[in-house]
Amino acid sequence: MNIILASTSSLFGGQYLDYIKDELVKLYQGIDEILFIPFARPSGITHDEYTVIASEFFQKINIRVRGLHKFQDMAKAIDDSKAYFTGGGNTFLLVKMLYENKLMHLLKKNVESGKPYLGTSAGSNIGGLNMKTSNDMPIVYPPSLECMGLVPFNINPHYLDPTPELKHNGETRETRIKEFLVQNNTKVVGLREGNWVRRIGNKITVEGLHLTRIFEQGKEPYEVKSGTEID
Amino acid sequence: MNIILASTSSLFGGQYLDYIKDELVKLYQGIDEILFIPFARPSGITHDEYTVIASEFFQKINIRVRGLHKFQDMAKAIDDSKAYFTGGGNTFLLVKMLYENKLMHLLKKNVESGKPYLGTSAGSNIGGLNMKTSNDMPIVYPPSLECMGLVPFNINPHYLDPTPELKHNGETRETRIKEFLVQNNTKVVGLREGNWVRRIGNKITVEGLHLTRIFEQGKEPYEVKSGTEID
Repeated sequence: MNIILASTSSLFGGQYLDYIKDELVKLYQGIDEILFIPFARPSGITHDEYTVIASEFFQKINIRVRGLHKFQDMAKAIDDSKAYFTGGGNTFLLVKMLYENKLMHLLKKNVESGKPYLGTSAGSNIGGLNMKTSNDMPIVYPPSLECMGLVPFNINPHYLDPTPELKHNGETRETRIKEFLVQNNTKVVGLREGNWVRRIGNKITVEGLHLTRIFEQGKEPYEVKSGTEID
Repeated sequence: MNIILASTSSLFGGQYLDYIKDELVKLYQGIDEILFIPFARPSGITHDEYTVIASEFFQKINIRVRGLHKFQDMAKAIDDSKAYFTGGGNTFLLVKMLYENKLMHLLKKNVESGKPYLGTSAGSNIGGLNMKTSNDMPIVYPPSLECMGLVPFNINPHYLDPTPELKHNGETRETRIKEFLVQNNTKVVGLREGNWVRRIGNKITVEGLHLTRIFEQGKEPYEVKSGTEID
């Protein structure tokens, strides 16, 4: 496999995908067109609007972008494509669309065959075992929360450290992930913004600007450096 | 009906349920024992541990608390009880437990018959039409997201205004609710901590320390004062 699962598409104040541009050039080496999966619809924008945003970035590295929603036969579009990018937004909406169109397993099969895959945020959640560590609001009800399992753990994108100065009693991210671990014996990789998971063949590493925080049942959470191999 | 759906159980730095004590005395007037529904398990604590926390508060106002999990026949316990309190925690877990034990509709029927109901956080989410505006992590997969509909709208508890100084690209609460409204034509009542919804008979008001922010499809969000009647 040849995949990147990134915490976010943009750093605070930064341009879309700019911080990870060099990595994307390597990921998509030899590819001149990718299939964009726009179903997560951040802020509720349309599939067309979202595809324009992705296209504008990929133009800079000479890659053409086609939106999956434009194809009459979406299954065939997935099989015919050489590489993929699933953008962020709402993971519930993304997973519901993929299941309703019978595309989740098909996408998995194609990525497992070696075609490059990039996910950001919701698009990274679906690379994990399931979407049970998504941060998103359950605005729709998908037929399942199981995902592609391109890596043998779950992703928590936009991982956010507690902010003690915030006088608010909503749960911290860490509390939420610990609640998940009471119910599930599944490793969770908390990706701070600017970090990503890289898989090349069978080798999986965490990469990026910050330490990555990892949560496992029955253990204290721990931090690993960029470049560390995980499984 | 006679219900309170509160944003939170505790204000920042405050004691459990303390800020709303006077209201609870009125809600449960003439009641000496309530049934506590501990299924949301905040921070993954046990049902027993959670019931102790609730009991300790209600002791102060001379009300005995029994945990629903202690009953062999939970349906009968609901029918036999004179009043209810559902505590906060993880809404997905709470809703899954209620459905799996066939209690969601039964609780609704009893509350609609006039028995007092208090919900905090997740316990307030289930008083709305559905839990699609919960803030919680989908740590388990409930068989449905539909809830009791004790009020004709959805609740967003712990409503949090955007914090511009936070250099983080995760979605703001407002963005999430707007994504919900693209998919659903359902009013959302954003309850800041310290606010609650009060229903007495057919009259529904918002109450508490702050303005309440209301979201509807095709409208700009707007704010209403404590005491305002809503529908």
